[in-house]
Amino acid sequence: MGASLRALGQKAKAASREIATAGTAAKDSALLEAADLIEQRSDWLLSANAADVDRSRGSGMGATQIDRLGLSEARLAAMAAALRQVASLPDPVGEVAGGWRRPNGLRVEQVRVPLGVVGVIYENRPNVTSDAAGLCLKSGNATMLRGSSSAIESNRAIVSCLREALGKAGLPEDAVTLVEDTSHEAAVEFMRLDGMIDCLIPRGGPSLIASVRENATVPAVIDGDGNCHVYVDKAADIEMAVSIMANAKMQRPGVCNAAESLLVHADIAADVLPRMRSALDGVELLGDERTRAILPGIAVATDEDFATEFLDLKLSVAVVGDLSSAIAHIARYGTGHSEAIITEDLRAAERFCNEVDAAAVLVNASTRFVDGGELGLGAEIGISTQKLHARGPMGLRELTCLKYVVRGDGQIRQ
Amino acid sequence: MGASLRALGQKAKAASREIATAGTAAKDSALLEAADLIEQRSDWLLSANAADVDRSRGSGMGATQIDRLGLSEARLAAMAAALRQVASLPDPVGEVAGGWRRPNGLRVEQVRVPLGVVGVIYENRPNVTSDAAGLCLKSGNATMLRGSSSAIESNRAIVSCLREALGKAGLPEDAVTLVEDTSHEAAVEFMRLDGMIDCLIPRGGPSLIASVRENATVPAVIDGDGNCHVYVDKAADIEMAVSIMANAKMQRPGVCNAAESLLVHADIAADVLPRMRSALDGVELLGDERTRAILPGIAVATDEDFATEFLDLKLSVAVVGDLSSAIAHIARYGTGHSEAIITEDLRAAERFCNEVDAAAVLVNASTRFVDGGELGLGAEIGISTQKLHARGPMGLRELTCLKYVVRGDGQIRQ
Repeated sequence: MGASLRALGQKAKAASREIATAGTAAKDSALLEAADLIEQRSDWLLSANAADVDRSRGSGMGATQIDRLGLSEARLAAMAAALRQVASLPDPVGEVAGGWRRPNGLRVEQVRVPLGVVGVIYENRPNVTSDAAGLCLKSGNATMLRGSSSAIESNRAIVSCLREALGKAGLPEDAVTLVEDTSHEAAVEFMRLDGMIDCLIPRGGPSLIASVRENATVPAVIDGDGNCHVYVDKAADIEMAVSIMANAKMQRPGVCNAAESLLVHADIAADVLPRMRSALDGVELLGDERTRAILPGIAVATDEDFATEFLDLKLSVAVVGDLSSAIAHIARYGTGHSEAIITEDLRAAERFCNEVDAAAVLVNASTRFVDGGELGLGAEIGISTQKLHARGPMGLRELTCLKYVVRGDGQIRQ
Repeated sequence: MGASLRALGQKAKAASREIATAGTAAKDSALLEAADLIEQRSDWLLSANAADVDRSRGSGMGATQIDRLGLSEARLAAMAAALRQVASLPDPVGEVAGGWRRPNGLRVEQVRVPLGVVGVIYENRPNVTSDAAGLCLKSGNATMLRGSSSAIESNRAIVSCLREALGKAGLPEDAVTLVEDTSHEAAVEFMRLDGMIDCLIPRGGPSLIASVRENATVPAVIDGDGNCHVYVDKAADIEMAVSIMANAKMQRPGVCNAAESLLVHADIAADVLPRMRSALDGVELLGDERTRAILPGIAVATDEDFATEFLDLKLSVAVVGDLSSAIAHIARYGTGHSEAIITEDLRAAERFCNEVDAAAVLVNASTRFVDGGELGLGAEIGISTQKLHARGPMGLRELTCLKYVVRGDGQIRQ
């Protein structure tokens, strides 16, 4: 197993050198061709997926997981549309991000280049296969995809469309490879392909992230939890606060940029909290003591609740004495994803933006906007909650790095 | 041990929140004060260092290592000068690196902010203590320093100057902390301070790097080997090629941006190689077959030699048939550090720049310029050979990250 995975890694590495210098037109043509193939071969893709779904159902997979695994004509159309969308985005490769001349005449430039080989390890959504490969291809990277065993037939079929499209565009098919060994041992080996994988992106739950932290020896960008807060300042527009909170919690509760916790300034809590309860109809509220004094019916929020990303119609609520306490609460329980303040007070807004340590801070807007599409990146391969390399939504630019190009006319160092 | 290291990490984390928003004037004043203290207390620092040197000599440390460990008035003056130099550089924090408005009116900005806590693990040069802490302080980061046991007295004394200077400037002393437990177990624990260390920078030899790859669970930037090549193209100015090669190899052979390998185009090898041998007087040459046909006296270069960073007056030499072979040789043996081409041919230069995958590619200039100071970054904390986060010399900007600040007036997601 180890040998064949390394052989696959070497193929990906070789392909990455070719695709790194490929022109935009060839890459776009491969993306459009792949989109067409996915639509043209929908019957075949759906039957491969049906085999995965049957097998998984037979082995007792739950309904939510089955839903994630399942494809449909509509989902295939969305995958094709995503590939076409990526084709329409500007190519990040070749941008000169900066440049200057040194006193000795050396001309220094920082040029944007692909990372090389991007390894993606993920769970059972088959659309990640085409989404991730498409973004990597457009940014000039080779991709090694390691999906779950439950989706293996679907992934094989999708990858074959992508590889055929690469070939038709005159690009190396090995720029997209699927790791077919879905054992745990192969996953660990995959995270340790030093010298082959330049960037590992895990997309999945806490156990996958923990395994990457523990086992990976290649550089990784962690797409971690989102325990996101909405803080309603004493100078908030209360109607706006209620509307944003309801949106941040309820518009799509199962995603990482949904809010999990509400903090309300003590001075306005008696007014705000009952209105929040009405607006958050269907959401289970868990409150601290001061919250429960105003909303006596609700359950107690424990320390653990404040630290939990519910990904559900559940919300922890605390009353805080001032902005500093809100910032301290977020520092203690937040995961550095997205944090919002609702206020009309300029100083409070600026302090919140400066002092809250998160990938994204928002003033008077829903946390749900922290997403590659919504922020204007066009698409995203994940949302980084670490600080190295990329923070927040990762788009095409975040799949590149800067290389120094230094031009001289014979300079030597004194 | 584990408990006290975690306690230290928590103090550093708390201090990082304060120093992240400190003004430039306070940070500069701490840097200048630290420089003054290091000079004023030179007797005390030198006696602490003498204790380290005596102890290390007694335990059989070699002369090269002792030289690295030793301080002198001149070395202390250089450390103070480096701190003053960092104070004079522009503060990277607060730069708005980009910004735009979305169709729904949201204003999106990417603002440069400190990383948080930077962990530095290093070997026995005591100047790394003040250099690393100074760069981190200027960029608004807290630093946890884990030097070697051999330098513990020197490091304690230097850190006490830095902490006193922070206090005098009204900044938290815990923004610079020294890990005094220099056991191997503490080093491993240090690399696993998740949630405390935002960026780990190892500065040391291959065994330290290997240990970081194996053990670290926090994000790291690897400052790896430099197996750097100079390729002399058939269209090279031969005099320039000889002068650059001699500089790249001999000006300071023990550093990572020194060249370790010479590649010469076959068409000019008979002319170039004898001139190289004269210019590289004192350098041991190891050649492939074609090189030895022209320079019959020299030893055989094995595959391993071509893969070795000698850090010494030793050079592997190969004759290549064309530019493609040179690029393939570099892809096979290079470590992605610094690679140079000597040519007057525009197309060859551009192909080399595009196709060679390294932190820095140079045209008609010595590899020795790949250094934070020489490239104009003002100073550097290391040279990254990975692609994530930073590539090449890491200056103040590379000790920061970008945070999204999103301002709205009540936007919710549809």
